[in-house]
Amino acid sequence: MSDHRRSSRVRKPFITTLLVLAFLGVSDRMSAQQDGLAVARAYREAHGAQVLAEFVELLALPNVASDATGIRRNADFLVAQLRDLDISAELLSLPGAPPIVFAEMRVPGATRTLALYAHYDGQPVDPSRWRHGPWESTLYTGAMEQGGQRRPLPAPGERIDPEWRIYARSAGDDKAPIAALLQVFRAFREAGVTPTSNLILFFEGEEEAGSPHLRTYLEAHRARLAGVDAWLFLDGPVHQSGQPQIAFGARGVTGLEVTVYGATRSLHSGHYGNWAPVPGEMLAELLASMKDERGTVLIDGFYDSVEPIGPAERDALARLPAYDEELKRELGLSWTEGAPATLAERLLLPSLTVRGLESGNVGALTRNVIPSTATAALGVRLVKGNDPDAMLDLVEAHIRQQGFHIVRDEPDQATRLAHAKLAKVTREGGYPAARTPMDLPIVQRLIAAARRASGRELLLMPGLGGSLPLYLFTDLLDAAAVVVPVANHDDNQHAPDENLRVGNLWYAIDLFGALLTMPQ
Amino acid sequence: MSDHRRSSRVRKPFITTLLVLAFLGVSDRMSAQQDGLAVARAYREAHGAQVLAEFVELLALPNVASDATGIRRNADFLVAQLRDLDISAELLSLPGAPPIVFAEMRVPGATRTLALYAHYDGQPVDPSRWRHGPWESTLYTGAMEQGGQRRPLPAPGERIDPEWRIYARSAGDDKAPIAALLQVFRAFREAGVTPTSNLILFFEGEEEAGSPHLRTYLEAHRARLAGVDAWLFLDGPVHQSGQPQIAFGARGVTGLEVTVYGATRSLHSGHYGNWAPVPGEMLAELLASMKDERGTVLIDGFYDSVEPIGPAERDALARLPAYDEELKRELGLSWTEGAPATLAERLLLPSLTVRGLESGNVGALTRNVIPSTATAALGVRLVKGNDPDAMLDLVEAHIRQQGFHIVRDEPDQATRLAHAKLAKVTREGGYPAARTPMDLPIVQRLIAAARRASGRELLLMPGLGGSLPLYLFTDLLDAAAVVVPVANHDDNQHAPDENLRVGNLWYAIDLFGALLTMPQ
Repeated sequence: MSDHRRSSRVRKPFITTLLVLAFLGVSDRMSAQQDGLAVARAYREAHGAQVLAEFVELLALPNVASDATGIRRNADFLVAQLRDLDISAELLSLPGAPPIVFAEMRVPGATRTLALYAHYDGQPVDPSRWRHGPWESTLYTGAMEQGGQRRPLPAPGERIDPEWRIYARSAGDDKAPIAALLQVFRAFREAGVTPTSNLILFFEGEEEAGSPHLRTYLEAHRARLAGVDAWLFLDGPVHQSGQPQIAFGARGVTGLEVTVYGATRSLHSGHYGNWAPVPGEMLAELLASMKDERGTVLIDGFYDSVEPIGPAERDALARLPAYDEELKRELGLSWTEGAPATLAERLLLPSLTVRGLESGNVGALTRNVIPSTATAALGVRLVKGNDPDAMLDLVEAHIRQQGFHIVRDEPDQATRLAHAKLAKVTREGGYPAARTPMDLPIVQRLIAAARRASGRELLLMPGLGGSLPLYLFTDLLDAAAVVVPVANHDDNQHAPDENLRVGNLWYAIDLFGALLTMPQ
Repeated sequence: MSDHRRSSRVRKPFITTLLVLAFLGVSDRMSAQQDGLAVARAYREAHGAQVLAEFVELLALPNVASDATGIRRNADFLVAQLRDLDISAELLSLPGAPPIVFAEMRVPGATRTLALYAHYDGQPVDPSRWRHGPWESTLYTGAMEQGGQRRPLPAPGERIDPEWRIYARSAGDDKAPIAALLQVFRAFREAGVTPTSNLILFFEGEEEAGSPHLRTYLEAHRARLAGVDAWLFLDGPVHQSGQPQIAFGARGVTGLEVTVYGATRSLHSGHYGNWAPVPGEMLAELLASMKDERGTVLIDGFYDSVEPIGPAERDALARLPAYDEELKRELGLSWTEGAPATLAERLLLPSLTVRGLESGNVGALTRNVIPSTATAALGVRLVKGNDPDAMLDLVEAHIRQQGFHIVRDEPDQATRLAHAKLAKVTREGGYPAARTPMDLPIVQRLIAAARRASGRELLLMPGLGGSLPLYLFTDLLDAAAVVVPVANHDDNQHAPDENLRVGNLWYAIDLFGALLTMPQ
């Protein structure tokens, strides 16, 4: 992980055009640092109604990645908004891909560069399942499910309740941080505050479609991105407890499908039962051999490549609130794998899960047969140190150890007759995990700034359980990468009636005010 | 099994009307015994074209059990045919059920009674999948798949090749034995041959619909059926090798469905993988605990109630042709459960098979989730001595031993939180196996007669693997019951292009000629 421990090294200047921003008139950077949070907060307190109105304007633009016209209107709108703020934004383009909204902001004298990632596209919608149009942006006095009532947008100067919710696609995921950033730049320009870091804005337009062009974009613009010290992923919800959090990694992901074979055709379970091999039983024995009852994976070497966490991560884990019992109650679980280890601890290990099982039929379609095959879809989540291919190799080695001959296609008769136990293994692609050490100086600065902004205990998550292609940034671009979510955890992301709690927009503005002016 | 060892006991006479048949003029029963086979064979050799034409007439009647009108036409046709032979046939009826074609034939001086079971209904058809209409009865010079050509029915006296095939629904399953019996009665009347046993004809009309009224019919007519010494089930195909066979039992059947539970909803496999219980894995561990790799069931007591076979059955097993290797090649199997035990041996033990598995999705529908449930449909085949309910109790006891709390309905939240491992078990109905001891004197007589008729080695199968409700006859009616199949093994029963090899019709006529005149 030494590749990240280099923020104190002297960096070569950007080789691209230097953008001298109009608001870089304040030369005393320390005073700007002091003021960033206060300036941002004062601005949104004074201009709350306008901030909400401008957010609604951004939310009114349909933004599904597959809708090229709508996506382009979003991108053009953002470029125009940034240029209004004298930020020289541009579009990066690839054929057939939504553009990246991109801006470089050089601060004279700044010795580090922060890149701010967000995405302006949203999940596809089924309007019939929404109470209002997904791009109508309706304001409620609280969450609909908790009795919130629709109300008009506030008039200038009207008191704004932070419990209000704005309902629209992408309100939480992920236009909120973009809207908040625009307001912070506006506030800074008005107050003459200068960021303390060079900044790069990088707003993607197809994250909800799986970021199929992200790697190509990063490789194409590698030179311009080479100087980034830390990427801030402004995406996702805060902790279920409502407490703000920062996460320092995400798991990688891969998977495989395993099919085991009995006879070449389904057999009558009476005529052949007790003699013909039963694929469902063979598969059960294979899967049972992979894990013990406590959830420990028994595949040789499965945990060997895990990079252990350090004292900062251990300390952060110890400080996390005890939330597991509540989660278990909510999910109807009386036990968990690896207990008493907590969910946050367990997410720092690779996982092996059965995502799907299929053999013959169950329920009303059950027939008296011995099916000819049984299939399991297995999911593998990876942590720092795990190579996706190498992990699949371990799983395959285990399958072989259980006596199976592995094939890649449907076995022919000769292959069937030559091997008692046959498994067709289909490997999925995938990508590795990423983890940024929490004790990097730049990370410590980010944490301190976020603590100032939140005013509550800030949760530090060593790693998220889900998978993001953070490795492209940590490994391909050789930078630190942290996930800085701002949305409420109950924002219905990816679902109908997506919303943002207004207080979380305020938090985003305050947070970015502090982060952009954190000490050198 | 002593209930079957009573054929030498004095029986009380039938309490129903005695039918004195017109052809019972021959008083020397020994000469009838001598002649039965020869008379039947000579008859079909002399009248082959007519025998085929009359079979075609029977096959022309659509006979799906759900078609009440068609079924009734078949039943009426059979009653008329029998009455033409001076056999006082009648219909037994129940509301909403196809009738039983029934006849009692008392032979003065006969000391035993044989009942001949067959069914005149056939499997439902999808005519679009048949080469010809299912009730058109087309004659081919051989099996269609082996290049047989369509040809007209033979003219009287024309040479008939036993390899010819008659294609029609129920040609093999199960009108062939009915047609053969009619011809034997005709031959006997012409030649003045008297059967050596009292006879009961019992032709069912809904066997392919699962015999839903069979028990009711048997109970309603228990008194008339009380004197039967042995039931002959004239149904099913001969051995795959083409050799004739008699089977002395069939397995019973039951089953259950088991669903195990994870969280109350599908969980994101990234956010929760390695912490949330995985139902597919829990189910795999449960199933793996039920059987070892060789196919031995590990459930306590699973084999304890099996009634062991005797020396006659062991001897019969030893004489069966070695057919397993050929079957394994055909089915693409390089091993079998319980090897080196043969299929015939393994069918004498109860079996436990996974008929279906389901959890989440596999293939193109695989999602990155931990499904909330996993389900297995398990089939259980039973042998003599196994009680269906008691066997399911053993399976449930095993599930409990593995730490599961068993529920009958979807568990509520309180139940989920109270038990780490939950299994919903749904028990199926079922019925027990039946086995008739091969060393009963009447069974020995049947075997000897069949050997005479077949002219080839007769295979004696202690038990069939599939399930038939033979127990109704052995246990409810307290009689011996043997399965006497006549159709070719490749008769496409239950499938399109069902057919009967003409040589198998000849075999049926010869066989019944011998069986009906076997020595006292």
